[in-house]
Amino acid sequence: MGDRPPREPAHRRRRTTTLGDGVRRGLRPGRGPGGEGDPPVTEAGYTSNGKPGKGTSPPPPSSWSSSCHTLQESLLSSASGYSNYRGILNWCVVMLVLSNARLFLENLIKYGILVDPIQVVSLFLKDPYSWPAACLIIVSNVFIIAALHTERRLAVGSISESTGLKLHVFNLAAILVFPVVIVFIVPSLTPVGGVLSLGVYTVLFMKMYSYKDTNRWCREIRQAQVKRLTRSNSCPSVAQSNGRAGQAHVSYPGNLTYRDMYYFVFIPTLCYELNFPRSPRIRKSFLMRRLFEMLFFMQLLVGLIQQWMVPTVQNSMKPFQEMDFSRMVERLLKLAVPNHLIWLFFFYWFFHSSMNFVAELLQFGDREFYRDWWNSETVTYFWSNWNIPVHKWCLRHFYKPMLRKGVNKFMAQTAVFLASAFFHEYLVSIPLRMFRLWAFMGMMAQVPLAWFVGRFLNGNYGNAAVWISLIIGQPVAVLMYVHDYYVIHYGTPA
Amino acid sequence: MGDRPPREPAHRRRRTTTLGDGVRRGLRPGRGPGGEGDPPVTEAGYTSNGKPGKGTSPPPPSSWSSSCHTLQESLLSSASGYSNYRGILNWCVVMLVLSNARLFLENLIKYGILVDPIQVVSLFLKDPYSWPAACLIIVSNVFIIAALHTERRLAVGSISESTGLKLHVFNLAAILVFPVVIVFIVPSLTPVGGVLSLGVYTVLFMKMYSYKDTNRWCREIRQAQVKRLTRSNSCPSVAQSNGRAGQAHVSYPGNLTYRDMYYFVFIPTLCYELNFPRSPRIRKSFLMRRLFEMLFFMQLLVGLIQQWMVPTVQNSMKPFQEMDFSRMVERLLKLAVPNHLIWLFFFYWFFHSSMNFVAELLQFGDREFYRDWWNSETVTYFWSNWNIPVHKWCLRHFYKPMLRKGVNKFMAQTAVFLASAFFHEYLVSIPLRMFRLWAFMGMMAQVPLAWFVGRFLNGNYGNAAVWISLIIGQPVAVLMYVHDYYVIHYGTPA
Repeated sequence: MGDRPPREPAHRRRRTTTLGDGVRRGLRPGRGPGGEGDPPVTEAGYTSNGKPGKGTSPPPPSSWSSSCHTLQESLLSSASGYSNYRGILNWCVVMLVLSNARLFLENLIKYGILVDPIQVVSLFLKDPYSWPAACLIIVSNVFIIAALHTERRLAVGSISESTGLKLHVFNLAAILVFPVVIVFIVPSLTPVGGVLSLGVYTVLFMKMYSYKDTNRWCREIRQAQVKRLTRSNSCPSVAQSNGRAGQAHVSYPGNLTYRDMYYFVFIPTLCYELNFPRSPRIRKSFLMRRLFEMLFFMQLLVGLIQQWMVPTVQNSMKPFQEMDFSRMVERLLKLAVPNHLIWLFFFYWFFHSSMNFVAELLQFGDREFYRDWWNSETVTYFWSNWNIPVHKWCLRHFYKPMLRKGVNKFMAQTAVFLASAFFHEYLVSIPLRMFRLWAFMGMMAQVPLAWFVGRFLNGNYGNAAVWISLIIGQPVAVLMYVHDYYVIHYGTPA
Repeated sequence: MGDRPPREPAHRRRRTTTLGDGVRRGLRPGRGPGGEGDPPVTEAGYTSNGKPGKGTSPPPPSSWSSSCHTLQESLLSSASGYSNYRGILNWCVVMLVLSNARLFLENLIKYGILVDPIQVVSLFLKDPYSWPAACLIIVSNVFIIAALHTERRLAVGSISESTGLKLHVFNLAAILVFPVVIVFIVPSLTPVGGVLSLGVYTVLFMKMYSYKDTNRWCREIRQAQVKRLTRSNSCPSVAQSNGRAGQAHVSYPGNLTYRDMYYFVFIPTLCYELNFPRSPRIRKSFLMRRLFEMLFFMQLLVGLIQQWMVPTVQNSMKPFQEMDFSRMVERLLKLAVPNHLIWLFFFYWFFHSSMNFVAELLQFGDREFYRDWWNSETVTYFWSNWNIPVHKWCLRHFYKPMLRKGVNKFMAQTAVFLASAFFHEYLVSIPLRMFRLWAFMGMMAQVPLAWFVGRFLNGNYGNAAVWISLIIGQPVAVLMYVHDYYVIHYGTPA
């Protein structure tokens, strides 16, 4: 042991160097028997050997046998000012990897390989000759064109603002209601297909809402220009022409084209503006990497769900029927891990890979699709940073307008959570064709949670609390829905 | 959302401040509609708005609607020089706690509460009227006294060095052989009792070995003094008298007393010296804390073993009989977690609580019973820092003497591992009354492992490798022995 000098951890040098030195000599017999000759200075601060010169002079043959103990504290007792535990982080990582490896192995042994791409396809279409979801999505163009033409009429002033508003409201309402109707009258539409198409329609709703607002604002600005010509150069639409050097600049009525509209429909943002920041060029390598990630994580997600989620959920049906509490908790925690991993992969797949891929393809410049929510120390910070497109939309078209109407902040915030809760419920209940309020309540529960965490926890505790709410919160909702879905469709769950 | 300014993570300020500023304004509608008015400077470095003064002057009613996008990269893409993932550490901790909580709950559901103090007692004595282990330990005094008297004879020169050496060798051999004989002729001695008493005897062996060496060295020094009086004051035994102020100083022949001997026997070190560093006083509070820890961890260890280890081990018997490889690995990983936790608790209990308790009680000054092995980046560093008393002994009485005899370092190191391997085997095989070489091979495997890690891995990888070898290595050996023990004593394992 210790024949070569071991890498000295930093603290040694920090602590009494003479001690470290003595110890190191002790560890290194290569220095010859003289090494331990001079008793090192201890933390107590006195030398166990009076004569300073001794270390240098050649020691007598057996002096190394003299003293091999020094007065000192153990590292872990508070008396020794020691605090270097970087090894512990590695320990955490190793333990996590090993225990999850075991879980995965156990799962393989128990169920064999369940991954099956064919099954995935069948989720999308029961009958391979009818593609309800696809058709539904294609039909959505109608509403886009409707919105565009309404705006054109408004631009030329052939219809009044109020009429335009009515048309828009009708159009937006139709966007939300139409898919619901379809889902209920077309039984061949599977839950997965339903979620997809409803997702598309929800996104479309928010985009169209932003579209109408922004255009209205432009009209207001145009009128403002007409009124106070003096300040005309402070009109952003004009102002921006100075900035966007080298790019064709669009100002108000000129933006009402199919090209502009569809560009807005496809780029990964929900907030319309006349002149989006554009990235200078399409980086091929970047594009390829994102594409690879998209495909890879797609496979991974499907695999994890089939191999890990499905069996775990099925196993947890029984305890939930019997309301066996301790087993329910155990199942819940067991489900929490895969569910959380899947959520993390999904986040990366959707918000980083896919959105960046599309943005790169369309040269859309603003790639801030998420901020550093993983460091969030308050629930509020998490919700306002993990999904920036939606957050931006809520801020611009929902929250601030309310504030301007004189609603106080807490009410406005709660309203935003309510809207968000509504859409969560909308995206889950309709495709599953059953109305529970789990998703809704889950979102609304964030308000008191946010208050609690913000009030009582901060720093790493706050961060940990946010993580826990993420890891535990979701599987609860998932289990609730799956349980009810089983009860409805397969009678008593297996 | 985001109505109050969220705690800004450090990196924002680090990154382009203007961007951060713009974002923060964007997040804070309280600043009024003017907030988003001025498009922030992007990382690309140009303003999407030419006029600098705009932000300050009262903006036109709808200017906030102008631009809500800026040219920027996603945090996770390498282009953004972002690297703040402190949240991940909290994530690791939360995941670890949750998954182990689940394991524990699962265990409780499966087996109920297995903790049972009575059972513990029965481990020590089958027949409450015969205490073989205790008697065996009491008998050990014979050897202590034998060593002391041999030294006394040697001191006065009534026997020659060679005779003294013979007597010591005989005495030391007896210390190792005697308990083995007893274990085999007294069937009522349980494995646990056997391990305890053999442990005591092993410690005693090392102490007595150190005792004889140190005294011999002192005699050599005394002769050296007689020969060269000029350098007499460089004799450490005298030299130390200057240092140890206020303490009664002992020089060579004067140390051969019962009091001195038994003090050495009871203090937590294996290396004898004439004048141990003494702590100035007994700190009551420190003593009480260590005592509490001792009792608490004792209970915890017993509980964990009964509740977690025993059932897991029993479950893993079947796969090991059937040599079902994948299940064997799964069982192994399942066993690794509790085994590792128990080892960690044991380490703290033995090397920190117990040793500090005894040392405090006996005012023994040198509390370095372990160094920061948890940061060790090489296997060598781990082995030379996790158990300092043994390491010190090996260095002083085994490794250095060999080097002085001209053995090269690698050979000497291997020899140390061999000795260590022998004692590991000795402490396991004898009490279990069966001779497998698992422990022996386990220790010897450290030599190639040390070479490999030192050669190919360093930094955190080395550290992780050491952790893995600890977490995985031990349960392998444990399973091997338990398996064989079952096969022998209960025929086919349950």
